[in-house]
Amino acid sequence: MKKLINSPDEVVTDALAGIAAAHPGLSVDTKARVITRAAQTRIGKVALVSGGGSGHEPLHGGFVGTGMLDAACPGEVFTSPVPDQMLAAAKAVDGGAGVVFIVKNYTGDVLNFRMAAEFAEEEGISVQTVLVDDDVAVQDSTWTAGRRGTGATLLVEKMAGAAAEFGGSLAEVAATGRRVNAASRSFAVALTSCTTPAAGRPGFDLPEDEIEVGVGIHGEPGRSREKIRPARQIVADAMAAILDDQPLDPGEEVIALVNGLGGTPLLELYIVFGEVASVLAARGVRIARSLVGNYVTSLDMAGVSITLCRADEELLTLWDAPVNTPALRWGV
Amino acid sequence: MKKLINSPDEVVTDALAGIAAAHPGLSVDTKARVITRAAQTRIGKVALVSGGGSGHEPLHGGFVGTGMLDAACPGEVFTSPVPDQMLAAAKAVDGGAGVVFIVKNYTGDVLNFRMAAEFAEEEGISVQTVLVDDDVAVQDSTWTAGRRGTGATLLVEKMAGAAAEFGGSLAEVAATGRRVNAASRSFAVALTSCTTPAAGRPGFDLPEDEIEVGVGIHGEPGRSREKIRPARQIVADAMAAILDDQPLDPGEEVIALVNGLGGTPLLELYIVFGEVASVLAARGVRIARSLVGNYVTSLDMAGVSITLCRADEELLTLWDAPVNTPALRWGV
Repeated sequence: MKKLINSPDEVVTDALAGIAAAHPGLSVDTKARVITRAAQTRIGKVALVSGGGSGHEPLHGGFVGTGMLDAACPGEVFTSPVPDQMLAAAKAVDGGAGVVFIVKNYTGDVLNFRMAAEFAEEEGISVQTVLVDDDVAVQDSTWTAGRRGTGATLLVEKMAGAAAEFGGSLAEVAATGRRVNAASRSFAVALTSCTTPAAGRPGFDLPEDEIEVGVGIHGEPGRSREKIRPARQIVADAMAAILDDQPLDPGEEVIALVNGLGGTPLLELYIVFGEVASVLAARGVRIARSLVGNYVTSLDMAGVSITLCRADEELLTLWDAPVNTPALRWGV
Repeated sequence: MKKLINSPDEVVTDALAGIAAAHPGLSVDTKARVITRAAQTRIGKVALVSGGGSGHEPLHGGFVGTGMLDAACPGEVFTSPVPDQMLAAAKAVDGGAGVVFIVKNYTGDVLNFRMAAEFAEEEGISVQTVLVDDDVAVQDSTWTAGRRGTGATLLVEKMAGAAAEFGGSLAEVAATGRRVNAASRSFAVALTSCTTPAAGRPGFDLPEDEIEVGVGIHGEPGRSREKIRPARQIVADAMAAILDDQPLDPGEEVIALVNGLGGTPLLELYIVFGEVASVLAARGVRIARSLVGNYVTSLDMAGVSITLCRADEELLTLWDAPVNTPALRWGV
């Protein structure tokens, strides 16, 4: 295992130092392990806090900034952050209008954010939680009861973030986040495993000619092992899984995210996007907006996830709203 | 070898179809293999054309848009585009003020762009060429006489692109590009090889505990093979190579690019950026602007390149100018 790290113990601390050096618009508390915007929350604006295990960058720290998150709490690699981090984040960014926790559906994250919400309420901060569970691959998984939260997290953070900038109340911003999650479905395929710095070897074995269909973002098992096939067939199967779960009628619009898991070249992600576009065109579904790149990753895993969010005018307005974060930036 | 492709022969065509579907602001001629802005060049604006082998995405197609390139010509993977592509691009985007070719210093690219420049001149289009040769690792290499062109290509395309938007003449825009190249130095380290779709196996062998120090963006040999070491030491050596070649005095400012080669997680790139920042801080050099991410890649190669561009007020103004491309976007 070769990695550009100093030592497995220092990975998160060292990466936070790099994030602090690279992004003057962020404020990084390397000790408390909280990333916030450098500017304080506007009084009366609902604040958004997310977090989760490290190893999925740019999620979540790369989504802190105007129009998206107010704070992110990175845990150790593939390990939930602790309630103290989330509480520190909530206290740092509450602008008096309350805090929305955006939580990917993994047992550790759910429990720790729940505890943090209780602590925050005790300190007089109102909290609403939005649970993200968009991955249609499997019900229940290695670290999850119910569906896993994956690519839709970006969409929830973007659109709930815009709703907060537009002055939405705590209930309204949380409702927006839940609506985005309910409108989104994802499916992922892995071509390789990934290696955490602490383990130093791949998290699972995948033979040289096989893929994991329906993989989770920590390498959790999916639906099946299959032989590697042309991208067109891999995408057709992934799209069938998504569209079986949430049929889309001709004339409907989607926001489409083709997301690299970390080790896949952008060249291949564009090939996948082309196949996604073909499947949708054949159904008469219009891609209203799209993103292609590495956004919700699994360290060095080769593979891709596809997320479709059924869009309407309101969601597109929220999507198009200005955003200024390290990983997403437009309109500013 | 597992890749998300349909067949090795169709990689570039399929990726272009995906780029076309993903980016309504671009116009993609999949037959001529030319990517241009969807909007025609403003009459009187100097046009910028770049190109090179595919496999380095988002370079160059991801840098087509307002404030950067007017057109890009993708060749086959790791293979120069042909003069006909470059000529077609020049004809498509010339706004009457001439065209700047931005050419990475590889023999095939240099020859083909030279031929295209002659053809274009014959058709009445004035052409100036900016050669990018920022990689300090080696003089002459597998496909290069002189230094290789790598990460600085992004900087040249961004700042020359801004100079063109600001109304610079053909000579002025080319001079800006040359000035950025002259102010820039790069150095790369590979942890793994990369695999082209056509070859189907790694381009070179790198033992499980070794790194290629000074690698080129096609896997060309660098200065030495070394044992894997902590990121701090790897960065210290890379920075020494850059700063030996272009010393920077206390008080000077740089634009710093920490660029992933394709297979390295963003988490590690931030660790590298933190180390780059430490080395510069110790020298009293200020990071005026920075980028961390995958911009000039080598398919699935794990590794990183570091580029430093000595900055001044004029270059920072050009850097900060609005840009709206798939891979770089701000100010709009």
